[in-house]
Amino acid sequence: MMKLYETRVAPNPRRVRVFIAEKGLTEQVEYIEVNLQTGENLTPEFRQRNPMKKVPVLELEDGTCISETMAICRYLEAAYPETPRLLGESAKEIALIEQWNRWIDFFYMMPTGMAFQHLTGYFKDRMTPNQAWGEACKSDAEKFFAFLDQQLEGRRFLCGEQFTAADISAVCVLDFNKVIQQKIQDDQSNLLAWYERVNQRPSITA
Amino acid sequence: MMKLYETRVAPNPRRVRVFIAEKGLTEQVEYIEVNLQTGENLTPEFRQRNPMKKVPVLELEDGTCISETMAICRYLEAAYPETPRLLGESAKEIALIEQWNRWIDFFYMMPTGMAFQHLTGYFKDRMTPNQAWGEACKSDAEKFFAFLDQQLEGRRFLCGEQFTAADISAVCVLDFNKVIQQKIQDDQSNLLAWYERVNQRPSITA
Repeated sequence: MMKLYETRVAPNPRRVRVFIAEKGLTEQVEYIEVNLQTGENLTPEFRQRNPMKKVPVLELEDGTCISETMAICRYLEAAYPETPRLLGESAKEIALIEQWNRWIDFFYMMPTGMAFQHLTGYFKDRMTPNQAWGEACKSDAEKFFAFLDQQLEGRRFLCGEQFTAADISAVCVLDFNKVIQQKIQDDQSNLLAWYERVNQRPSITA
Repeated sequence: MMKLYETRVAPNPRRVRVFIAEKGLTEQVEYIEVNLQTGENLTPEFRQRNPMKKVPVLELEDGTCISETMAICRYLEAAYPETPRLLGESAKEIALIEQWNRWIDFFYMMPTGMAFQHLTGYFKDRMTPNQAWGEACKSDAEKFFAFLDQQLEGRRFLCGEQFTAADISAVCVLDFNKVIQQKIQDDQSNLLAWYERVNQRPSITA
């Protein structure tokens, strides 16, 4: 059985759990909780699985460990080709989903995570918070809500009619974003409608 | 003909150019230089191609614009299946190349770019440099040299015997890294040997 080393409350492991659920693979994975706050990710055993000390990590039956959210998702997409496609079929779909995933990672997840780390002091035992950098990142994260709202004009999901991994990434970051007190504004009606649409899926509300 | 909007001296466009060269597609692309320092990427025309105002952007013959280095590479990998594979064949290869690409993006390219922006003031007309953040990033980027050296022990290329997109990403960041005065140390012999090996390829020395 595959093992997923994860942290329930963290956004990137949730992206993988939702991806797994959308593929109908939930029962094929054993879930192992890693407590980041007490530093269970810093032990020699965990570093052998991922030298970057991050969750999630997928351990295959042969012992191979795959780090990085999107690398795990790509593994599952390629290894279970009969399951619903979440990373695209045509070259253009594949590219546009990847573009969105990277926009979300670099311009939404990254600033949100940085603002969280540098403004709340959650990991201050292992890093030096930089308040000004945290504030700059918080402002960048906020801008992404408006960008999402604008891009969702006339679209059911981020890449068009189909729900994809890009929607999973966006909703997981958006929900995590509460830790820096940001949320969808009342006048962001496209984003509000998309959020409601996405939250009709059992994978998201699980 | 496809068009690549790029900036010759920047590392991410170079990743795409090398990828294109390794696939033998160089002559199938028109290259259009975008001057970042004078802000040619900030114009309304360019923002229509990429709302994030970044290079590279690949414009297809039908006008579709693809932003983000790895999204462009994934497009080319899927659209030209008869060319050499640089993103893996098996599910495990695909996942491990993606893992490496993301490690390089998040833990090498990102800190290198941040150190460059926050320490040199290159874009100070459009952002506020944060010296302390720049220094923290510079230190992180330096650690990645040692990590690469250690991981290359007993391997020809980052993901094993085959040259992949991960090697392209690493060498392009490593060369760009000169802007913050970092380089391979004399005792990093695995990394030195890999660098020499990679530099035997015409795509890299072009």
